[in-house]
Amino acid sequence: MSTPDEAKGQARLSINEATVKYATVPQVVQLCRDAGIESVGLWRENVADFGLEASAKLVSEAGLRVSSLCRGGFFTAVDPDARAEALASNRAAIDEAAALGAPTLVLVAGGLADGDKDLAATRERARQAIADLVPYAQAKGVNLSIEPMHPIFAADRGVVSTLGQALDIAETFSERLSDGRPVVSVVVDTYHVFWDPYLAEQIARAGELGMIASYQVGDWQLPLASDTLLSRGYMGDGAIDFETITRQVMDAGYTGDIEVEIFRQEIWDDEPAEVIATVADRFSRLVAPFC
Amino acid sequence: MSTPDEAKGQARLSINEATVKYATVPQVVQLCRDAGIESVGLWRENVADFGLEASAKLVSEAGLRVSSLCRGGFFTAVDPDARAEALASNRAAIDEAAALGAPTLVLVAGGLADGDKDLAATRERARQAIADLVPYAQAKGVNLSIEPMHPIFAADRGVVSTLGQALDIAETFSERLSDGRPVVSVVVDTYHVFWDPYLAEQIARAGELGMIASYQVGDWQLPLASDTLLSRGYMGDGAIDFETITRQVMDAGYTGDIEVEIFRQEIWDDEPAEVIATVADRFSRLVAPFC
Repeated sequence: MSTPDEAKGQARLSINEATVKYATVPQVVQLCRDAGIESVGLWRENVADFGLEASAKLVSEAGLRVSSLCRGGFFTAVDPDARAEALASNRAAIDEAAALGAPTLVLVAGGLADGDKDLAATRERARQAIADLVPYAQAKGVNLSIEPMHPIFAADRGVVSTLGQALDIAETFSERLSDGRPVVSVVVDTYHVFWDPYLAEQIARAGELGMIASYQVGDWQLPLASDTLLSRGYMGDGAIDFETITRQVMDAGYTGDIEVEIFRQEIWDDEPAEVIATVADRFSRLVAPFC
Repeated sequence: MSTPDEAKGQARLSINEATVKYATVPQVVQLCRDAGIESVGLWRENVADFGLEASAKLVSEAGLRVSSLCRGGFFTAVDPDARAEALASNRAAIDEAAALGAPTLVLVAGGLADGDKDLAATRERARQAIADLVPYAQAKGVNLSIEPMHPIFAADRGVVSTLGQALDIAETFSERLSDGRPVVSVVVDTYHVFWDPYLAEQIARAGELGMIASYQVGDWQLPLASDTLLSRGYMGDGAIDFETITRQVMDAGYTGDIEVEIFRQEIWDDEPAEVIATVADRFSRLVAPFC
């Protein structure tokens, strides 16, 4: 028997679709229902495959909450056409987040352009791209959350490398949604930020700013996979102290769902229902008790 | 023909032994002499193989400067015996640095103990270990330089993850060597710090504190090697902007030698003289002009 507090923590579990990568939106919805999971983090590609309106209807009728839409961003291009294309894609993502009722659209900045080595200029282009998207997001009532990525990805995928840097960018925007939330917020993903010696302070700062739009969990499992993107592991299989970080995020006032997001080939190759069962079990022991 | 300024920059090139891993101390000394390189970064293992006094004598008679001794540290153990052993090894390394006339002993903190997930406590143990070593280093006239490691290594090799954190630790010590240098300083290694959004400020801060004891260069080359430790590449083969970082380090007042330190299997497998020639060429174009 779980105590009421434990059940309350467990009810915040959200399955990020990336954890069961090969499942379609209807399959993920069914998996969540079968496992008594109330929330799902959706990916644009999967939603497009099943159809935006159909996905929104299915999730809503299943009584599931949408915890986030992944993912916008990748807007660091130097080339004007590529930049315009990235911004158009992000505006479409904002429309999709609105249609799905997702509380936030997660943004991954993108990396250095081919042959470019100027991280500072690339970071400024990422900030400018967010500035360009803010009016549209505000008009559509969609929060944009900047996801700092582990520095392992600084060159090729995400030039926003720390929570502090993400907050420095987010703080340059003062726009608010009609519900009072900032238009621009941040994501705290354990995998990307656990190593940061200033994590506790920055989580507290994010809380004071009301800027934690999403909390995602996944473990740092060594050795790294040859495709380093796929090195995330189940909570408990790696080096991350989920109790400490989860307490910090809760102390910072975060009240939303908690997404389990794991990119890992062996997990993708497993039976999705077993993956969900493992996720729910690990979450119940390593995350839920602290929220 | 090189200009006097270019020649001055090139004269600061030091070959870190790790770049030609399979060469003995006499071989590295000969390689440097043949290539007109004036400085060498030594490793304890190689020095022990050839003998400490013999190495000191050989390097000195060859007219080479020693830019650093690698490496102390790995003192994050919880177990008291393991901790005592690590401290004893570090005191031996201090003796060796003194005997070799190395301006600094490079310290890599070490990682989490097996099964431990408490980064904050591990970081505090690293700081405490340095505190325990400071009186000995001061008595021996040896500078200790904390090397922040890329966060990819935070869990398993180096819990000091940013230059700012290294400086926060170094600043807790006010002890000075008889030549006026701080006993505890930091290393700036491009591979480990290039991603840091606050790098420029932290290099400037290190300069103001007089705490840059070593500047090491090596590139961040993707894809990462399966052993991520071995992903460093020749300058120019990766994502790092050496001009910008080198200018920042020089503007911060660093006047010492600049070590090229590359761990990479393909480079280790190459003919050492060719490796040295490539290093000298890349250094002359990508580093020397900016120092």
